Amino acid sequence: MNAFSYRISGVQPSAIREILKSTADPSVISFAAGNPAPEAFPVDEIRRISNDILQEEPIAALQYSITEGYPKLRDWLKEDMAKKGNFSENDEDLIITCGAQQAIETCAKIFCNEGEAIICENQSFIGSLNAFRSYNAKLVGVETDDDGMIPEKLEKALKDNPRTAFIYTIPNFQNPTGITTSLERRKAILELAYKYNVLIVEDNPYGELRFAGIDVPTIKSMDTKGHVIYAGSFSKVLSPGLRVGYMIAAKSIIGKATVALQTSTVHANIWAQMVAYRFVTEVNFEEHLEKLREIYKRKCSLMLNSLKFSMPMSIAFTEPEGGLFLWGTLPRGDMNAFCKAAVAEKVAVVPGNAFLMNEKGVSYSFRLNYSTPTDEQIEKGVEILAKVAKTMF
Amino acid sequence: MNAFSYRISGVQPSAIREILKSTADPSVISFAAGNPAPEAFPVDEIRRISNDILQEEPIAALQYSITEGYPKLRDWLKEDMAKKGNFSENDEDLIITCGAQQAIETCAKIFCNEGEAIICENQSFIGSLNAFRSYNAKLVGVETDDDGMIPEKLEKALKDNPRTAFIYTIPNFQNPTGITTSLERRKAILELAYKYNVLIVEDNPYGELRFAGIDVPTIKSMDTKGHVIYAGSFSKVLSPGLRVGYMIAAKSIIGKATVALQTSTVHANIWAQMVAYRFVTEVNFEEHLEKLREIYKRKCSLMLNSLKFSMPMSIAFTEPEGGLFLWGTLPRGDMNAFCKAAVAEKVAVVPGNAFLMNEKGVSYSFRLNYSTPTDEQIEKGVEILAKVAKTMF
Repeated sequence: MNAFSYRISGVQPSAIREILKSTADPSVISFAAGNPAPEAFPVDEIRRISNDILQEEPIAALQYSITEGYPKLRDWLKEDMAKKGNFSENDEDLIITCGAQQAIETCAKIFCNEGEAIICENQSFIGSLNAFRSYNAKLVGVETDDDGMIPEKLEKALKDNPRTAFIYTIPNFQNPTGITTSLERRKAILELAYKYNVLIVEDNPYGELRFAGIDVPTIKSMDTKGHVIYAGSFSKVLSPGLRVGYMIAAKSIIGKATVALQTSTVHANIWAQMVAYRFVTEVNFEEHLEKLREIYKRKCSLMLNSLKFSMPMSIAFTEPEGGLFLWGTLPRGDMNAFCKAAVAEKVAVVPGNAFLMNEKGVSYSFRLNYSTPTDEQIEKGVEILAKVAKTMF
Repeated sequence: MNAFSYRISGVQPSAIREILKSTADPSVISFAAGNPAPEAFPVDEIRRISNDILQEEPIAALQYSITEGYPKLRDWLKEDMAKKGNFSENDEDLIITCGAQQAIETCAKIFCNEGEAIICENQSFIGSLNAFRSYNAKLVGVETDDDGMIPEKLEKALKDNPRTAFIYTIPNFQNPTGITTSLERRKAILELAYKYNVLIVEDNPYGELRFAGIDVPTIKSMDTKGHVIYAGSFSKVLSPGLRVGYMIAAKSIIGKATVALQTSTVHANIWAQMVAYRFVTEVNFEEHLEKLREIYKRKCSLMLNSLKFSMPMSIAFTEPEGGLFLWGTLPRGDMNAFCKAAVAEKVAVVPGNAFLMNEKGVSYSFRLNYSTPTDEQIEKGVEILAKVAKTMF
């Protein structure tokens, strides 16, 4: 019988899933997830809005809709994104997707032939990497430092890979490292994209969750030549269960993406799109975002302070200015053994090699999530991690 | 800058969309859609259920969930499908998708290398054809008669295309023709799949909407060798806006589909999955289905009787035993001119060539939908169609 297609046959379930399985045990404290804080969900507002929708326009919420997305939500997003420099009415368009993940996957589908390169930060979001792998892309990792991709390394990657589908980057509070790409670096990345005539896919799921430092302009907002495809999402600012994201790009690209989405999901759940629209227009959205930033700021500080207080000095941690993740790096030694020892003591973290272009590569780092656990879990979990670390480092 | 990938560069927006655009004009009577009857939506029940969910378990409805789908819904479906012979616990699995369309697209992604064949009924559902086209599949159409695919023609297609990814079929009330594949033909198709060692993708979105004749066993229920992938959906029996469908296949296949869906939509909207679960368990689902069958039976009869009463005798119509569509075939002449003349008189139908493997091919047929228009629209629209037809045939 048929074998699986070449494109997908090599893709395996992500290593993270195995770790996450251990977190089904309720006695395990999980720093391994990437979920928004449950206390950040505006439950009462969503219930009221949902009820209004199903009272006032139930057929619209339940019937087939158009692939491009709920027109009112698209219009609101276009206006909001235009204000932020991420959308230009004249030559761009915006389509609603089932989460930003579908926007990323669609970019691979419509741009990447099998064997072509996709250039990423040398550790990157596993969901995107697997989306690229599912089209048999050649993943090329570019070394990063505290300011993001190193331009010389990016240029070398572009030179080495003339058949590059696009550069993929998460400039704000990157997953997994929490690092923000500096303004200079963003400019350099864009210039290199122009020089080598390649596209950039800018993934910005956490951009609104900045709780320290100053906003850095998106790469999209600096693009004057239509090279940047922008992916955004309601998952971190409203609810991920809704599965509502969006993609902005040149009209021809969104046209092709529309064809691709017509043939896969047809359209995103329409109730969810209506909920998102009413939420951003009926509730004080900026106030809601402020509340989220407060939650994440507090949780991040709590975890960082706990780590600094109790972990061996030799283990370094990034200090993110937003988002959901911290990145720890061991001085030496066996990172996987550390993660395994931690989970045996009922604290789950994600081993850094899960985020490498090649999962079998060597990493001395691990990812910690501070948004999902409670304050008590953060304190207790870090205490346990520290005990484990002290026996090893 | 990058061209689109080879796989998708040839795919154009479907011809149907152009027709559907004309239906944005509210004075146009549309027989061109494929929407469930709006009066078939259980609006009050869904509103109550939604409110209960957002009251009782809001975080579960709003947080990330697992790719496989909402466990309670999966369990209910497994049990229901096992009763119907479509699921076997031992060697099969079931995954929730964003509509059956995503199941179909995923089959192409995981099985069809570029240039490989997918064998379909010679006119078939345009959404599926475009999904296959988006992976650069070679579409091979098999001639059908009133009993479905003709086995000799299917065998020839299999012989001619040793690199076939799968056979795609809609055995019940096919879209666009309304034809049901007979039991003998289903057996013959399965035997040929065994003989040539290929998979079958059985798409059954309308199976529960039988309003005449006797149920025919699914191909899946006769499969003893794990060759059949089954796609089902809540779109026609509950609401398409929910975007909840499912896919049943051998465990290894569902495992690979899970990887594919993890990297695209992550999971289907979880609120919608919970609504579907509570609906099928809290409401008398069989009674609801009976109500739907009554609605479709009545509308189908109304359209067929009107057509028989007023259309020229030389135009033939299928008499479906379920589903949403009728298929008209002109004796000769220019079908596209007929469709254009009809839309000029404010009645939209879909030209038959839209459903061919090659849209530029010749068709003398057109598709009529009876589920979406009101009774008045059916009567008035058929009257107009008849007037147009009489001037031409």
